[in-house]
Amino acid sequence: MTAFWAEAALVDGVLARDVRISAHNGLIEAIESGAAARAGDTVLDGVVHPGAVNAHSHAFHRLLRGRTHAGGGSFWTWRTLMYREAGRLDPERYRRVAAAVYAEMVAAGWTSVAEFHYVHHAPDGTPYAAHAMERALADAAVDAGIRLTLLDTCYLAGGFGAPLAAEQRRFGDGSAERWLDRLASLREAIRADYDPGQVQVGAAVHSVRAVPEAALAAIATGLDPSLPLHVHLSEQPAENADCLKATGFTPTGLLARHGLLSPRLSAVHATHLTRGDVKLLGDAGATVVMCPTTEADLGDGIGPARALADAGAVIALGTDQHAVIDPMLEARALEHGERLASGRRGRFDPAALRAALTVGGAASTGRDLGVLRVGAPCDLIAVDPASTRTEGSEPDQLLLTATAADISAVVIGGRVRARGGRHTDLGDPAELLRKAKEAMA
Amino acid sequence: MTAFWAEAALVDGVLARDVRISAHNGLIEAIESGAAARAGDTVLDGVVHPGAVNAHSHAFHRLLRGRTHAGGGSFWTWRTLMYREAGRLDPERYRRVAAAVYAEMVAAGWTSVAEFHYVHHAPDGTPYAAHAMERALADAAVDAGIRLTLLDTCYLAGGFGAPLAAEQRRFGDGSAERWLDRLASLREAIRADYDPGQVQVGAAVHSVRAVPEAALAAIATGLDPSLPLHVHLSEQPAENADCLKATGFTPTGLLARHGLLSPRLSAVHATHLTRGDVKLLGDAGATVVMCPTTEADLGDGIGPARALADAGAVIALGTDQHAVIDPMLEARALEHGERLASGRRGRFDPAALRAALTVGGAASTGRDLGVLRVGAPCDLIAVDPASTRTEGSEPDQLLLTATAADISAVVIGGRVRARGGRHTDLGDPAELLRKAKEAMA
Repeated sequence: MTAFWAEAALVDGVLARDVRISAHNGLIEAIESGAAARAGDTVLDGVVHPGAVNAHSHAFHRLLRGRTHAGGGSFWTWRTLMYREAGRLDPERYRRVAAAVYAEMVAAGWTSVAEFHYVHHAPDGTPYAAHAMERALADAAVDAGIRLTLLDTCYLAGGFGAPLAAEQRRFGDGSAERWLDRLASLREAIRADYDPGQVQVGAAVHSVRAVPEAALAAIATGLDPSLPLHVHLSEQPAENADCLKATGFTPTGLLARHGLLSPRLSAVHATHLTRGDVKLLGDAGATVVMCPTTEADLGDGIGPARALADAGAVIALGTDQHAVIDPMLEARALEHGERLASGRRGRFDPAALRAALTVGGAASTGRDLGVLRVGAPCDLIAVDPASTRTEGSEPDQLLLTATAADISAVVIGGRVRARGGRHTDLGDPAELLRKAKEAMA
Repeated sequence: MTAFWAEAALVDGVLARDVRISAHNGLIEAIESGAAARAGDTVLDGVVHPGAVNAHSHAFHRLLRGRTHAGGGSFWTWRTLMYREAGRLDPERYRRVAAAVYAEMVAAGWTSVAEFHYVHHAPDGTPYAAHAMERALADAAVDAGIRLTLLDTCYLAGGFGAPLAAEQRRFGDGSAERWLDRLASLREAIRADYDPGQVQVGAAVHSVRAVPEAALAAIATGLDPSLPLHVHLSEQPAENADCLKATGFTPTGLLARHGLLSPRLSAVHATHLTRGDVKLLGDAGATVVMCPTTEADLGDGIGPARALADAGAVIALGTDQHAVIDPMLEARALEHGERLASGRRGRFDPAALRAALTVGGAASTGRDLGVLRVGAPCDLIAVDPASTRTEGSEPDQLLLTATAADISAVVIGGRVRARGGRHTDLGDPAELLRKAKEAMA
C-alpha cells in the first residue's frame, strides 16, 4: 500500500483540507480529510485534482511546434509541413518521439491520452511486421507511464472521390474490411502483451473526407460496438462544403445516416456545425473533443461547445497537434473562446472545465477515470496554489490561473511519475525530444 | 561598465550568435556577435530579446485573479468586484500591491509599464496630501526596477449624463481644469524626486463614458501635447450605443471631433469599431493597445487588430487586469484572436508580435525603447530555447511557444532584475503579493 498526503484536494469537486489518499494495486483504497500525514506517506505539494485525460493526440505533431509560424498560410499549408514529418517516421523514431511527448504530457498533468494514430505502414504503404508502429506507441506509453487508448484509424481516401496522395499512402489499409481485420489482430496483440489498464485499443475513422460512405457503412456494421470510436468532424468549412456536394449531407448528418452517432462516439473539433448537427450530436449523447489551442493555432474557428453541452453532448479536451501541452491552458482556451464568441463570462464554470479535463475525457476513452473516489484509479495531479501565477486564486479556480509550470507532482496508478516538470523515470522531457529529433536527423 | 553575454540574441530582429552586449549608464554601448564571453561578463541563459513594454496596467486588479469565475456574469458584474478592491486601497496598500505586481511583471519579462491610474483620492473623494497615491506607484516602480509611465487619469462622470457613483468618488477631480492643475503639480513633483528614465508622467482620459464632451474639449486645448495620452475605447458594445445616443458619434468619432486623435494617443482595447473608426485611428497614426487576455477573460470580443495595423495604427499590448502577466501569452492571444476571427494563420508574424511587445509599447509611452541597438536603454530578456515548452522552436518563433516560466533572466537599465522567476531584490513575487494581501486584511 502507498499513501499520499496533500494540504488540500478536490474530492468529488468539493475542496477538502489535509487529505490522505491511500492506494492499493493502483486504485484508490481510502480518502480521508482532516487527516495528518503519517510516516512513509508521499507528500504532494499543492491542491490535488484528478489526473487530466487528453482525448486527442497526434504525438508526432509535436515536431512542428515553433516551426510553422513564418509566412502566414492556412490549415492546409500547415498540413503540408505535417505530412513531411509523417514521412520521416519509422517504428524506432515513432517510439522515441512519442515517449518524449508522453513524458511532456505526464509532467504537465495529463495522466491518460487517446492517440489518434494513422501512420501505420512503411512510406510506400507496405505493412510493417507485427504491428510495429502501434507497438511503438504502446511501448512509449509504458515508458512514460501514461494510460494510452490507442485509436487505430481507418484512412482510405485523399478526399471525396480521390485516392490517397503519395504522402498518405502509409496511412491506408485499402478497404474498411482490411482495416477491421488489422484492428482485430492488433487488439489481440495488445491484449497479449500489455496491461489493459495501461494500454487499450480503440478505433477511429479519420474523417468523412478520408473514409468513403460505403466504408462508413461497413464500419457501422462490422465494428465491435464496445470500442470507443473517434472521428475528426467539421474542423474546416471546406470539409463541410465538399461533404455536402458529394453526399448531400453534412459530415454529422452523414455519420447519423449510418448509425454512427452514439455515446461511444467522440467527434473531434466539431467547429463548424449547423443547428441540426448540434442537436444530432447532443441527442446521441456523443462526446465532443474540443482542441482549443489547436483550433486557435490553425485558425479553425470557435466551435459551439456550450450549445453542444446544452444539447446533451459530453465535452472533452485534447491537445491534438501539441502546439501547447497544458491542461490548464487548454481548459482556459475553451472558456475564452466561448467568452469571445458570446460576450458572456462563466460559460463553462470551473467545475465544468474540470469535468471536461477529467470525466469528459474518460467518457471518450470508455474508461472509468477522472474522479477521486474509492475504487477509482489513483491518478492525481497537484497544483501549486502559491506560485507567481496562482497566488490569491480560490482553490476551486486554479485551473483558470495555473499553467503546466505549476503542476508540482503527478501520480498515475498510485505511482509518482513526475515532479516539478521532470519525469521521474525519463527525466527532462525537452532533452528526450531533443534526442529523438537528433535520431531523426 | 557592465557586459552581458548570451548564446544568441535578436538584434534588429535578426538572430545573432555568441552575442556580447556592453552597457554604460544603463544604455547599450556596444553589441558584438561571434564574440567570446570575457571574465566578469554576466551570462544570460537563452535567446536575448529586447525587454517587453506593458502598455496597459491597472496594478490593483491583480487582486482579482482567480476569484471572479464563479457564477458566470458579464464585464459589468466583474466591474462590481473590481470596485470593491479599489475601495480598500490606501497609499501604503497601493504601493505594496503595485510593487508585488511590478515584480511579477519584471520576472515575466516586462521591463516597462504604462499604469492607467485613477484611484487618486480617499474613498470619499478628499485628496490625499502630496500626491500620495501617485507616489505609491512611483515608489513601487523604483522598488521593482521597472520603467513606469504613470498615466494620471481624468475621471469625471459615472456614464453619459450621470454623476460619479459612490464607489467612483475617489477617482474624480470634479472638472477637467482641476484635473489639469493636479496633473501639472504631479509632473513637477515626480520630476523633482525621480529619475525620468525610471518614472515619467503621462495622461489618460478614462473613457468617453467618464469624461463629458465639454471636458474632452477642455483637455484637447489644455493638455501639453508632448504628453502620451491614453483612453479606454469601445471595449463594450454598450459604450458605443450610449455614446451614439448621447452625442451622435462613435467614441472614436467623438475623439476625432475634438482633435484628440494623433500619434501621441493610445486607444486601449478598440474592440468594437466601425470601418470609419478603424480608418480614423489608422490615419492618425495612433497606437492601439490590445489586451487580448483581458478581452478574452471579460468576454469583450476580438478587436480588429490586423485591420487597424493595415490602416496605419501602431499595435501595442497590455496586461490590463492581470488575469495573466506574460508577454508571450499576451502576444499569442493577439495572434490567436486574429486566426479565430479570420481563419488564416500568420496574421501577425513573429516579427510583428515582437514589435507589438516592444516598439509598439514604446510608442504608447513616448519613450525610445524596444530595440537592441547602441545608445538605446539596456533592457533585455533571455528566453530559454530548450525548455519543455520551447524545445525544437525556431529562435525567431520562441514568442509563440514560450511562457513567462521560460524567461531565464531580465535586465533593466543594464542591471539584472530577475532570474528564473525571482526578482533579484524583492524575491518571490507570489510572496510579495501574499504579504500585500495580508496587510489589507
